[in-house]
Amino acid sequence: LLAFSGGLDTSFCVLYLQEQGWEVHTVTVDTGGFDAAELGRIEAMAARLGVASHQTIDARQELFDRTLKYLIFGNVLRGNVYPLSVSAERVVQARAVVRAAQSVSAQALAHGSTGAGNDQIRFDVAFRALAPDLAIITPIRDLALSREQETAFLKERGIEIPAKTTTYSINEGMWGTSIGGRETLTSHQPLPEEAWPGGLIDVARSPMQLQIQFENGIPVALSGGALPPIQLIQKLNQMAAPYGIGRGYHVGDTILGIKGRIGFEAAAATILIQAHRELEKLVLTAKQSFWKDQLGNLYGSLLHEGHAFDPISCNLEAFLESSQTHVTGSVHLTLGPHHCLVTGAESEYSLMNPDVATYGEANRLWTGEEAAGFAKVYGIPQTLIARAQGGQS
Amino acid sequence: LLAFSGGLDTSFCVLYLQEQGWEVHTVTVDTGGFDAAELGRIEAMAARLGVASHQTIDARQELFDRTLKYLIFGNVLRGNVYPLSVSAERVVQARAVVRAAQSVSAQALAHGSTGAGNDQIRFDVAFRALAPDLAIITPIRDLALSREQETAFLKERGIEIPAKTTTYSINEGMWGTSIGGRETLTSHQPLPEEAWPGGLIDVARSPMQLQIQFENGIPVALSGGALPPIQLIQKLNQMAAPYGIGRGYHVGDTILGIKGRIGFEAAAATILIQAHRELEKLVLTAKQSFWKDQLGNLYGSLLHEGHAFDPISCNLEAFLESSQTHVTGSVHLTLGPHHCLVTGAESEYSLMNPDVATYGEANRLWTGEEAAGFAKVYGIPQTLIARAQGGQS
Amino acid sequence: LLAFSGGLDTSFCVLYLQEQGWEVHTVTVDTGGFDAAELGRIEAMAARLGVASHQTIDARQELFDRTLKYLIFGNVLRGNVYPLSVSAERVVQARAVVRAAQSVSAQALAHGSTGAGNDQIRFDVAFRALAPDLAIITPIRDLALSREQETAFLKERGIEIPAKTTTYSINEGMWGTSIGGRETLTSHQPLPEEAWPGGLIDVARSPMQLQIQFENGIPVALSGGALPPIQLIQKLNQMAAPYGIGRGYHVGDTILGIKGRIGFEAAAATILIQAHRELEKLVLTAKQSFWKDQLGNLYGSLLHEGHAFDPISCNLEAFLESSQTHVTGSVHLTLGPHHCLVTGAESEYSLMNPDVATYGEANRLWTGEEAAGFAKVYGIPQTLIARAQGGQS
Amino acid sequence: LLAFSGGLDTSFCVLYLQEQGWEVHTVTVDTGGFDAAELGRIEAMAARLGVASHQTIDARQELFDRTLKYLIFGNVLRGNVYPLSVSAERVVQARAVVRAAQSVSAQALAHGSTGAGNDQIRFDVAFRALAPDLAIITPIRDLALSREQETAFLKERGIEIPAKTTTYSINEGMWGTSIGGRETLTSHQPLPEEAWPGGLIDVARSPMQLQIQFENGIPVALSGGALPPIQLIQKLNQMAAPYGIGRGYHVGDTILGIKGRIGFEAAAATILIQAHRELEKLVLTAKQSFWKDQLGNLYGSLLHEGHAFDPISCNLEAFLESSQTHVTGSVHLTLGPHHCLVTGAESEYSLMNPDVATYGEANRLWTGEEAAGFAKVYGIPQTLIARAQGGQS
Repeated sequence: LLAFSGGLDTSFCVLYLQEQGWEVHTVTVDTGGFDAAELGRIEAMAARLGVASHQTIDARQELFDRTLKYLIFGNVLRGNVYPLSVSAERVVQARAVVRAAQSVSAQALAHGSTGAGNDQIRFDVAFRALAPDLAIITPIRDLALSREQETAFLKERGIEIPAKTTTYSINEGMWGTSIGGRETLTSHQPLPEEAWPGGLIDVARSPMQLQIQFENGIPVALSGGALPPIQLIQKLNQMAAPYGIGRGYHVGDTILGIKGRIGFEAAAATILIQAHRELEKLVLTAKQSFWKDQLGNLYGSLLHEGHAFDPISCNLEAFLESSQTHVTGSVHLTLGPHHCLVTGAESEYSLMNPDVATYGEANRLWTGEEAAGFAKVYGIPQTLIARAQGGQS
Repeated sequence: LLAFSGGLDTSFCVLYLQEQGWEVHTVTVDTGGFDAAELGRIEAMAARLGVASHQTIDARQELFDRTLKYLIFGNVLRGNVYPLSVSAERVVQARAVVRAAQSVSAQALAHGSTGAGNDQIRFDVAFRALAPDLAIITPIRDLALSREQETAFLKERGIEIPAKTTTYSINEGMWGTSIGGRETLTSHQPLPEEAWPGGLIDVARSPMQLQIQFENGIPVALSGGALPPIQLIQKLNQMAAPYGIGRGYHVGDTILGIKGRIGFEAAAATILIQAHRELEKLVLTAKQSFWKDQLGNLYGSLLHEGHAFDPISCNLEAFLESSQTHVTGSVHLTLGPHHCLVTGAESEYSLMNPDVATYGEANRLWTGEEAAGFAKVYGIPQTLIARAQGGQS
Repeated sequence: LLAFSGGLDTSFCVLYLQEQGWEVHTVTVDTGGFDAAELGRIEAMAARLGVASHQTIDARQELFDRTLKYLIFGNVLRGNVYPLSVSAERVVQARAVVRAAQSVSAQALAHGSTGAGNDQIRFDVAFRALAPDLAIITPIRDLALSREQETAFLKERGIEIPAKTTTYSINEGMWGTSIGGRETLTSHQPLPEEAWPGGLIDVARSPMQLQIQFENGIPVALSGGALPPIQLIQKLNQMAAPYGIGRGYHVGDTILGIKGRIGFEAAAATILIQAHRELEKLVLTAKQSFWKDQLGNLYGSLLHEGHAFDPISCNLEAFLESSQTHVTGSVHLTLGPHHCLVTGAESEYSLMNPDVATYGEANRLWTGEEAAGFAKVYGIPQTLIARAQGGQS
Repeated sequence: LLAFSGGLDTSFCVLYLQEQGWEVHTVTVDTGGFDAAELGRIEAMAARLGVASHQTIDARQELFDRTLKYLIFGNVLRGNVYPLSVSAERVVQARAVVRAAQSVSAQALAHGSTGAGNDQIRFDVAFRALAPDLAIITPIRDLALSREQETAFLKERGIEIPAKTTTYSINEGMWGTSIGGRETLTSHQPLPEEAWPGGLIDVARSPMQLQIQFENGIPVALSGGALPPIQLIQKLNQMAAPYGIGRGYHVGDTILGIKGRIGFEAAAATILIQAHRELEKLVLTAKQSFWKDQLGNLYGSLLHEGHAFDPISCNLEAFLESSQTHVTGSVHLTLGPHHCLVTGAESEYSLMNPDVATYGEANRLWTGEEAAGFAKVYGIPQTLIARAQGGQS
């Protein structure tokens, strides 16, 4: 069973594996990066390559339910900017691939990853976690062929793959699009305008007001219009992308230990996480916020590094889920060219209640005398240190 | 010795304390929020109130060296947005106040904080840490007078304080300006344009390119022009403020346990931290980045909560300082209306070296076979779990 | 409604509050520190003091289910030694007191804590969390009377309380007994043999073998004999106490900021946590162990510091609960004078499976070549640092 | 340059590498596991094998200064029991081996590790960090020969190695001895008495009193007698080993992802860390203790997992060093069969000062009223939650 995208690498794999004597089945897992036409073309190509069977699996709902949801709960932006779109997709793709393999009683799992990047590790680890008894076959990594060699191999067998005209490798999905190539191989060059799949940003476009509703941490409506998460994300991407919101660069640490740089576009992810984070400030305690920051960051690191199937990830999901009990309310945002500003938030569970207490104003929860008593006891360790250890200066 | 700002509260304190029989000395600590004219006016007011002595202390260098530096090292933005300008100032103000008190052999320290906010706690704790044998006097907190009562008290004694015409309480300093009042007492109302001290944002202003150089984590030059940190921060504020960069809202947890909301403007802080963070991505290891995130966040929380004098803060400073050994290089940025985008970075110590290895490309550091071996061993815990515990699905 | 122990302080409170015009109801919450006779004596004393009603609540099961269970899951030993018995009890006592107050429609909650210790804070915070509309009354803290004054007050009203003959204040409960007084007020003096409620340790007593079975992290059987948790803990205390296991000293940081030292005896808690920890080493991954250590420690700190009702504690409980899915198996121990040694453990979910791989032996999971590939990739960050930053020496 | 222990594996390596055409130099690094006679025997064997040169390096002081010191500062016991003796030694051995290689201008580094354990990873990573341009040669891992094959190979060349008569593999060093074999390959079997190098424990031996002095976290004297750290550790091992203190089992996660179990004896390490931890309780603040626990544990994990040369380890050492400024004082202990009990501690910097405040007693630092004010403000978040979110029950 081969994870199949219809491109050069995986098309090569089909023919190569068939010649090695395998009966090759293929599966394409849609995590939001394909439209119907594209899925049709992939299916046609699979047929043309003579696969024993081909499946297309729509895994967008599973992607949201099993991973994206927790990335929102944890406000996960890697390196403070990048929403981890690729690694989230790999987890759900691996799960779907294994299910497909079981449906055809496959004896081995094949993927088209090279030996250079993160995905080979993520797939290998996921496959071993989900199907420890199936062999893993990775022709591209094993043979280390050049694109020219692969193209020639296919041509000899009557399959022509259009030469990729772009210099950039693009990974598109529901949670964002990453762009790599030429400039991103350096640490300092910006991508040219035409490299961004989202197109030119309209800097003169008027700002718009937007309201996002959350229930238990999950986005459920845009400016009052209820939408299931997948549709909500798509619509938000359409609304925000022209402003260039969520477009940036990230230099990250790969699983293999070297640095990698990418450009990315992720309007919906960026806005949802920002809005969610500001709503949480109203309803979580200081201690919840502090530890959620740390553990959300940890959860993202584990996902990025291919540890989604270590049970620690599941334990952290239990923590994150438990933290969202009261993350219900509305967030007000202004979207404009290159920016998204949260201007306010409301929640029936808000801990900022002017009827109870208002910061900086005289209020009913404590007296000046009680505050002075609090300050005195609060500073006792410092008083003791000053006396016993000479304090600091 | 009274910490004196020349405003209503501390002017009241001078006369009130004198009538209680105290000889009142005053000190004004400049952390970047006053210009020369303002300092002159404060000095004149102190004289008019008949203080025994008045000192003005320029603490801007100390503010940078003792606190801001570490906030940059730690990329500290509270709640991901707010640069903690106020709490940073309070620490250095407290230190300067205690030095002033020692210079006049004061028997007590007085400050004009109310019983409502964070500052009373920060000052009380700092004073007890630095001068545990001096009494602390807080007339405003103790008496709980209204502004009208204070004004009347002063007027009776021949001192007229101009009624504050604005509805907003503004705290201005080198690392940012905070704005509180009316709308910020709710969780959802934005401040009106005129409430922002920085004035209207010119949304049609052309973007500008900027380069910031760092040495061991400290910003040392703007687009090639070397500047000492204080001047660099001032210049950066001037350049970036018209774009409205670093302007936003923050809902935070106060030391007293309630929520507080403020608007803030902090162009230089926001840009420097963003630039510094991206430079670090080139030169720190994944493990350094992960733990610096956690500990930088912790350092900021401790500062915010008045724990700057707990020795843990000093221990964390040692960690942060040690992490900056190779944080030397240049960061390229584009500044535009409402946004600041890091477009690249360079460092002589960069761990992203295309001569050694390039992410996603065939490279010289490892072979496909070694990568496969790595992936296999990397996933062994998952393999064991799958066999012993049935894995996850 | 007064939390009542039948001792000097709370007996004083009954009469004092009655004279203040209150109708006083009392409740005694049993968390394992009382036998039936003692509960009878307390009830009789309440009647004699003329309380409007008295309740006795057996909260041992709730203590285990709501707190002790999580202390086992988290292997919580404060300062590495002390099992937090007192703070665990306070949480469940506060819950039971509030339920009792509701049952008699009380208007206020009273407790006999002094102003010196942790318990006043724990009770005040818990009562405000559970019954924010009820007033809190603390006569002992407010009046700051000496024991002599309280005794005289009661005597005048015909109530004689036997003068406490011991110099030590003892807090006994299911999860341990703490001992404070005289020597523990210094940092260096050990308690005399006679101060330990558990009596002399028989150093010549022969060691015994013991097996403890756990299911999902919960102890369910001793050497094959199934027992409900409360009975299991009691039996284990009986078996292990004569050896002096779990007896020691702890210097801790109190909520009020000063240091406090206690002696403690906690045989069952010490053994169960040690056994549980060793079982976990077989079934948890390295990442689970690392983060459970950190978060278990955090959970204990929060409990100790009176934050059991901050929702962060509930979020951490979700994490801890989730981590115990496979903590099922048997632990072998040797108990002897002053020590308890875990000699082995077994689990059907063990990740240490000699059929799959054996540490230090040639094995079937990887080849020497794969190990070398793993080591090479594993060390890439170090290689890059050596080249770019000169490495370390 | 070959790291040489004189045993079967490394003797095989000498002859094998010579036959491959290498000029073989050897080095033996003493980290406390060899006496003079043993070092002489190793030197003689090197000569007999015809090495080009042999060096013996005494690295015990470096071991203490560069690693053990920080393990004490961090109270590092892996899995709460095991003092990480082996990984500490590997770091300093790697450094000494690289220095030796430089002294003979070696072109490659060789070590005798198999492909089964942690040490191969630790050495490979360390060598790449310290000498990235030297090749690494590992004949035992590459050839995967059995002990019989190696023995035969040597015998053919006139070298007879006495067949190891024990079933156990022993690693002895200054910080502890680890024992692996037969029973430790299971998770539940204890080692037989005769397997422990320390010999039988004298359960009838009388307890002894001991005092350990620390200066800035470093042990400097035993019961008043000043000793340099290395001698202090040796003497402590001699005094405590007969009691069997610090003897136990540990199941750990290896770098390669499988579980490994060992027995260990580490009297000095166990006692010093326990004593140091109790002294810290007197002089560190609650916040220092909490974060030192977490970061000490992290430091140990990194060392264990071969990350000693990631700069994060160096950053953590700066934190740990900074935390020890006031860890100066004396600790009182009782040593007895199978146990070590800290009975008290004293420090000139103690924060437990009965002249200032005593836990549980009326005291001069605060009044009951101030404590009540503190408790009220301390619980405000809970009050707000109770009102806004319904609280917990």
